[in-house]
Amino acid sequence: MLRELTGKIGARVSGSPQAAAAVQWGKRTLESKGFANVHLETVMVPHWVRGKGERAMLISPNKARKVPLSILALGGSPATPTGGITAEVIEVHSLDEVKELGEKVKGKIVFYNRPMNPTFPSTFDAYGDAGDQRFSGPAVAAKAGASAVLVRSLTFALDDVPHTGATVLAKGGPNVPSAAVSTIGANLLSEKLKQSPNIRVQLTLNCQTLPDVESANVVGEIVGSELPGEVIVVGGHLDSWDVGQGAHDDGAGVVQSIEAVSLMKRLGLRPKRTVRVVLFMDEENGGRGAAGYAAAPRPGEKCIAGMESDSGGFAPRGFGVDGKPEVVNNIARWAYLLETIGADKIAPGGADADVEPLIAKGAVGIGLIPESQRYFDYHHSHSDTIDKVNPRELELGAIAMSILLYVIAQEGV
Amino acid sequence: MLRELTGKIGARVSGSPQAAAAVQWGKRTLESKGFANVHLETVMVPHWVRGKGERAMLISPNKARKVPLSILALGGSPATPTGGITAEVIEVHSLDEVKELGEKVKGKIVFYNRPMNPTFPSTFDAYGDAGDQRFSGPAVAAKAGASAVLVRSLTFALDDVPHTGATVLAKGGPNVPSAAVSTIGANLLSEKLKQSPNIRVQLTLNCQTLPDVESANVVGEIVGSELPGEVIVVGGHLDSWDVGQGAHDDGAGVVQSIEAVSLMKRLGLRPKRTVRVVLFMDEENGGRGAAGYAAAPRPGEKCIAGMESDSGGFAPRGFGVDGKPEVVNNIARWAYLLETIGADKIAPGGADADVEPLIAKGAVGIGLIPESQRYFDYHHSHSDTIDKVNPRELELGAIAMSILLYVIAQEGV
Repeated sequence: MLRELTGKIGARVSGSPQAAAAVQWGKRTLESKGFANVHLETVMVPHWVRGKGERAMLISPNKARKVPLSILALGGSPATPTGGITAEVIEVHSLDEVKELGEKVKGKIVFYNRPMNPTFPSTFDAYGDAGDQRFSGPAVAAKAGASAVLVRSLTFALDDVPHTGATVLAKGGPNVPSAAVSTIGANLLSEKLKQSPNIRVQLTLNCQTLPDVESANVVGEIVGSELPGEVIVVGGHLDSWDVGQGAHDDGAGVVQSIEAVSLMKRLGLRPKRTVRVVLFMDEENGGRGAAGYAAAPRPGEKCIAGMESDSGGFAPRGFGVDGKPEVVNNIARWAYLLETIGADKIAPGGADADVEPLIAKGAVGIGLIPESQRYFDYHHSHSDTIDKVNPRELELGAIAMSILLYVIAQEGV
Repeated sequence: MLRELTGKIGARVSGSPQAAAAVQWGKRTLESKGFANVHLETVMVPHWVRGKGERAMLISPNKARKVPLSILALGGSPATPTGGITAEVIEVHSLDEVKELGEKVKGKIVFYNRPMNPTFPSTFDAYGDAGDQRFSGPAVAAKAGASAVLVRSLTFALDDVPHTGATVLAKGGPNVPSAAVSTIGANLLSEKLKQSPNIRVQLTLNCQTLPDVESANVVGEIVGSELPGEVIVVGGHLDSWDVGQGAHDDGAGVVQSIEAVSLMKRLGLRPKRTVRVVLFMDEENGGRGAAGYAAAPRPGEKCIAGMESDSGGFAPRGFGVDGKPEVVNNIARWAYLLETIGADKIAPGGADADVEPLIAKGAVGIGLIPESQRYFDYHHSHSDTIDKVNPRELELGAIAMSILLYVIAQEGV
């Protein structure tokens, strides 16, 4: 399944023809696996398109040389004027620093260059800690009068691969062209700025935001034998960013969700409660699929738990549970079932974006926690390809999900 | 350190100039890190050399085509005559099958093709289960009259990369030329045999065993402040097979052992007991270094524990402890110190080859247990290169080792 999704379809950003192809693939796949009630639930999604030829050139003070920096426009970024924006660069390490700099930021390219903190054992914690630079940095810099923004890629890898991702646009503006720069590019730029503070960068982005597009979540299930109105949702997101193949993020979660439920069918297990696969659209660029799924009226049913896999197809270590302490304890009692495959750490927290709207409506949120060390080497970049996914690690995650799903379908939360 | 060992020296099979360079590198490195009593302890090691041009050609019945199979001679294998051995192939799945086949084996190339069993959660268990084909298969086939042996590579990866390794030669013979074939090659050969049972393979190996060579273990330590005569040994093996770079096997264990002790020095920690790094020679091809270290008289000292890292530089999950149940329990009490970095599974068993002679003399054996899924994708092959090692995963293993070493140095076992 992951070979098809990554190899035949590839990167599939919201609104793209590839995302539409992924929806059709998801529907065909759930049907071919014999799921019940396979259908699409339409949602309108953003349609942001990266232009060809985006680039950043470091211009030395004597203009004798232009050195390219590896960049990727951030998702949702506006374009530069034709010919790009050429401006001096001001390096900062926090949002507060931009606010404190005041007038000095005006007309400059603000360059957020605070590396992820390596002392966090979980790379997701380091990502969360440094992520404000990408999420909020562009809007903060735009408000302060910057002409454009560069953000150091959110990765521990020291290489020339830039990592894109969402940035939160200011409603009503101002918003400025914003791009992620590779860690090697960021180090080079920082070094050059120390030598020549007046060095300039020419940034050219030709991305555009087109009108919203109709897309869909893909849904299929095994109807519960005794309590069909109590539903456990399991899913990943069908969309990805527009580079690489979306293999770990989140092709892995999509195919693990399908496999986890398909496995019950192949083993002849009919759960007491309904187990429903939802392949969410638009996790990366707005979460419209997750919001749409949670908002839809579903008379006569109650979603008791939402499980998600959106942290990569690496060896599973356990699950994060977002619920009341007694619920976490209830679920943790089943850890022994996961011990053989080393996925028995069950701890509070950890549910991801697509199940958040379900949690808000009273469901317990559950997130697969794989080994995290390599995830951000690939995340949102040209490197997120299927050769980075170990088949056994992917399968072990699906097995862990299947075990926990089945026991919840039998015993409740 | 791992970049130097893998990039500047590379593969370093026992007796090779590269192994000698690794010994000098190890000594220089321990000295540069400020270890006390840095010295070499000489041992004689085997010197087996792979020839150039080894190959296996699948010959179709009408002789119109020869198809190459990707192979690597097994370590210690004798050569074929010049021009190779051309013979029919008999596929088997166990050593017992060879014994039962009796006369039918005579003159044939015996092809062991039992894949590793994917249902073992730990790949090391799957390796142990299928490994008899490589360890003992050649000698069993030779005794039954086979002319040569091919063994399916011990890996879950389906690719064209063969994986070599040690085979146990029959003392006094007979021994026959033996090679590992890639999993793709094994599948092809098996399929062709089903179509044409009389298909032949031409196997050409030009390896040779030269006289033993003097080599050495590299030793350095922090002398204990209160109980210097109680020694905790920590190590990995300096040698590797002669292909790839020996990055995971066992460059990782070598640099983790050095780093685990070096970290104490950098933190200004002086352990009560002596902590000694031993970089063992010849783990792959006879274990002479480990035997030599354990056999050497060391008046006035007692080795209370031997810790080894020889399961790859992947994210650490815990430690296997080889000792009496009360000792395992004692050490397991400290698991909480390892929980933050997810290395807190402490369970019986798991010590590796280089500490076995120490265990036999009364030491507690301790083996770092990293995540195992990807190890055999690279093990003993051209693929075992530094790009397969994630720097954070490697470092987390060293940190886990340092924590457990220090607490044992303070508290005993």
